[in-house]
Amino acid sequence: MSATTESLAAEACQACRPGSPRISAAEAADLLGALPGWEVVEAGGMDVLTATFTFDTFRAALEFANRVGDLADAADHHPELVVEWGRARVRWWTHTIGGLHRNDFIMAARTSAAAVA
Amino acid sequence: MSATTESLAAEACQACRPGSPRISAAEAADLLGALPGWEVVEAGGMDVLTATFTFDTFRAALEFANRVGDLADAADHHPELVVEWGRARVRWWTHTIGGLHRNDFIMAARTSAAAVA
Repeated sequence: MSATTESLAAEACQACRPGSPRISAAEAADLLGALPGWEVVEAGGMDVLTATFTFDTFRAALEFANRVGDLADAADHHPELVVEWGRARVRWWTHTIGGLHRNDFIMAARTSAAAVA
Repeated sequence: MSATTESLAAEACQACRPGSPRISAAEAADLLGALPGWEVVEAGGMDVLTATFTFDTFRAALEFANRVGDLADAADHHPELVVEWGRARVRWWTHTIGGLHRNDFIMAARTSAAAVA
């Protein structure tokens, strides 16, 4: 059965060490189906998972960034956050493997949930 | 007399409307002398004033971003903030004039003060 945003968000992040496998293209495509607004793009020679969320003010975008920071600290897995007036861009990737792990998709699902909190 | 980081941070931001003058190259060069770590770079066809600050953790970088957000809201002038693990990049520019105003240098000085708070 395919993942949903909710089921993905509820998965536990796994310990990820150098040598852990990157996600396969097929699995990434499947998981993206559960993550509206997210896409895989190349940045700095790596695949990263990114989405941009819009808000009414700078403050609302920054508050969202703080909610993402809280869930990042809780999972000990951290994104890049770009905050400007009315907009926040989030990029997830796994530094230790130089690309995307299933963990990144789990964190993306949690991020989407935090955008509507 | 040349500005210092402290004197610049203490200046009031002026109302800036379309048609307000961009800062001159000479004035920008003079003010950069009071802003260690800051540089003017081109981004999206505009000059922006940018600096990157390093921290020990993601949380410390995010807390700095929040301090910058507070001073941005207080001045009603907002930057782009990029937060990642141990690092935060700040970019100031003035949207209404498509470039740099003295206000941006004032905000940069306040940002530097917030980095050591």
